[in-house]
Amino acid sequence: MKTMISMGLKYENGKLLVLDQTVLPHEEKWIECKTADEMVMLIQRLAIRGAPLIGVAAALSLAKMAEEGADPAAIIAAAVKLRDARPTAVNLMAAVDRLVLKQPAENLHRGRITYVAEEIFHEDVLLSDAIAERGAAFINHGDSILTHCNSGGLATAGIGTALGAIKKAHEQEKHVHVYVDETRPLLQGARLTAWELNKFGIPFTLICDNMAGFLMAQGKVNKVFVGADRITKNGDVANKVGTYSLAVLAKYHRIPFYVVAPRTTFDPQCLSGQEIPIEQRKPDEVRAGKSPDACQAWNPAFDVTPRELITAIILDDMVM
Amino acid sequence: MKTMISMGLKYENGKLLVLDQTVLPHEEKWIECKTADEMVMLIQRLAIRGAPLIGVAAALSLAKMAEEGADPAAIIAAAVKLRDARPTAVNLMAAVDRLVLKQPAENLHRGRITYVAEEIFHEDVLLSDAIAERGAAFINHGDSILTHCNSGGLATAGIGTALGAIKKAHEQEKHVHVYVDETRPLLQGARLTAWELNKFGIPFTLICDNMAGFLMAQGKVNKVFVGADRITKNGDVANKVGTYSLAVLAKYHRIPFYVVAPRTTFDPQCLSGQEIPIEQRKPDEVRAGKSPDACQAWNPAFDVTPRELITAIILDDMVM
Repeated sequence: MKTMISMGLKYENGKLLVLDQTVLPHEEKWIECKTADEMVMLIQRLAIRGAPLIGVAAALSLAKMAEEGADPAAIIAAAVKLRDARPTAVNLMAAVDRLVLKQPAENLHRGRITYVAEEIFHEDVLLSDAIAERGAAFINHGDSILTHCNSGGLATAGIGTALGAIKKAHEQEKHVHVYVDETRPLLQGARLTAWELNKFGIPFTLICDNMAGFLMAQGKVNKVFVGADRITKNGDVANKVGTYSLAVLAKYHRIPFYVVAPRTTFDPQCLSGQEIPIEQRKPDEVRAGKSPDACQAWNPAFDVTPRELITAIILDDMVM
Repeated sequence: MKTMISMGLKYENGKLLVLDQTVLPHEEKWIECKTADEMVMLIQRLAIRGAPLIGVAAALSLAKMAEEGADPAAIIAAAVKLRDARPTAVNLMAAVDRLVLKQPAENLHRGRITYVAEEIFHEDVLLSDAIAERGAAFINHGDSILTHCNSGGLATAGIGTALGAIKKAHEQEKHVHVYVDETRPLLQGARLTAWELNKFGIPFTLICDNMAGFLMAQGKVNKVFVGADRITKNGDVANKVGTYSLAVLAKYHRIPFYVVAPRTTFDPQCLSGQEIPIEQRKPDEVRAGKSPDACQAWNPAFDVTPRELITAIILDDMVM
C-alpha cells in the first residue's frame, strides 16, 4: 500500500499510525495500530475520531490485514467488528461495506482491497477539499463564526469539513474570528479545534458550551458552522451532542446555521433523525471524577438537529 | 454573637468558618476566616458562593470585626472591600449597605452590628423557607426538573432557592426527578448540587450543559428551576452563565421556566438587564489546563435572561 499521511492518521513503511487525540493538545503521540482489534479499541476510546476519519481508518486497517496476507474470512470478521465500533457516524459503515462487506468473495483479495482503501483515503482528501471550498463561499470577510466539536484535519483525511471551510476562508484571506465551544464531556473543541486553529494561526476564542446563547445575544457571532455524523434522507442531522442546542439558539437569534459534510455522511436509507441510533457512552465521561461517585449521568454522544433548524447543508457536490 | 450554622457557613465560639466549596464533593473542609480580607478572597475564589450566602457571609465577617473591637473606620474600609468582592449579585451589596455603608456613624457600634448581622442570617433562613414553600407549589408529583448551577443550602443560609423548592417538594413527598446541568466552567451543578441531592436522597441525573436541548427535545424534563443573582425592576434576571441558553431552549420547547429568589436579590435601582455589571473571570477557568496554553477564552460568570423568557419569578413574598 502507498504511503498516506493526514493530520491524525498515516500509513508509512508498512505501519499504520494514529495520532492519539485523547492526549492532544499537550502531547502529540502517534500510536502504532497493528491489528483491526486495536483499531476498534482506538476508535471506541476516541484516540481516533471524526465521522469521515474513522471510516478511512477502518479501511486502512482492513487493507493492512490484506497486505499481511489475512484470508477473506478473517477480513470479513474484522470488518464486522470495525463496522460495529461506533453506531452513529454512517461513514464508518459506508467505508467498511464498500471495501469488504458488500463485496462478492472474489473481490476480497489484496490487490483490490489495498486499491480501494487508497481510493477511500484520497477520495476523503478530495471530498474535504471540495466541501471546504464550497463552505468557504458561505463565509464573508469579517465573519465571526461559532463552531462545535472538531470538524477539521483531525476529523477527516483532508482539510476538514466545517472547520475545513473556515480554514479555506482564512487561506483566501478573509478575516475570520472563530468562537470554539469547548464541547463537553470530551472537549474536542477546547483540545482539538483549538490545537488546529493555533497551528493555522486563525484567531479564536474558547467558550464553555453554556455560553453560546449569551454570545449570540451579545451579537458576537454571525454564523454557526458544524460538521455531521449522519444526514438522513429528509435532511435531519446527527452530530456531536450540543449541536441541537446551538441550532435552536441560532434560530432564536436569527443566525444562519450551516452543516458541512462529505457525501459519505449522507444516509438515504435512514429516512429521518428518529431512525439514527444515538451512541450512549459511559457516565464516567460526564462525572469526570468531579461529582459524587457513582451518581447517575446521561451521556448521549450525539444529538439530532431537524432540517428546519438548518439554514443549509453543504455537501461536496451540492447544497441541500 | 450567637452561634449560627448553615450548610456552608457557621459562626461558633467566636470563629467564623466557611465550607470550602471549591473542593466539594470529595472533601468537606471548613476554613477558618479570621479577617474581612480573608473573606474577600474566599468570596472571590468561590470557596463561598451563592448570591444570598455571600451577603450573609460578608455581614458575619463585619460583625466579627465589631466583636473583636474594630473601630468604625476599619469596619467601613472592610465593608467597602467586601461590597466590591464580586460585582453581579446584588445581595452582597444590599447586606453590606444595610449593615454598615448606609448607616450613620452612630450606628456602627458592636451592639447594633452584631444584632443586624444575626438578623441578616436568620432572615435569609426564613426567606429561603418562604421561597422554597412558594416554589414547591409550582412542582407536581412526577415532575422532572432541570436545574443549573447550585441554588441550594450551599447558596443561602437556609434550604435554598430553586433547589430549596425542589427539596421542599421532595419533603412533601412529591416524587421529583432532577436533571442537573454540570455548569461549566466551575461545575457547581456537577459538584455542589449533586452533593446536596445525594445528601437528601433526591433522585437525579447529571448532564453536560450542552445536552439540555436534546434532553428537552426528548421530553425528559417538564420544568426548569433556577436561582438568581440579580433581578431588575423590569424583571430581567442575571444568573450563572448558561441560564439564558436554558431559557431560550425552554421557550422553544414550551417548557415552563421558573426563577426562584429572595427579595434581597431584587434590585429596583437597576432598571433592566443591560444595566447589570457582568463579572468577567479569568480565562484559566475555561481553559482548565486542557487547551493550548494562553489561548483566548471568554469567561462571563453570569448572563442575563429577559423577563419575556421567564414563566414566573417566585420571590418569598410574591410571584412576578
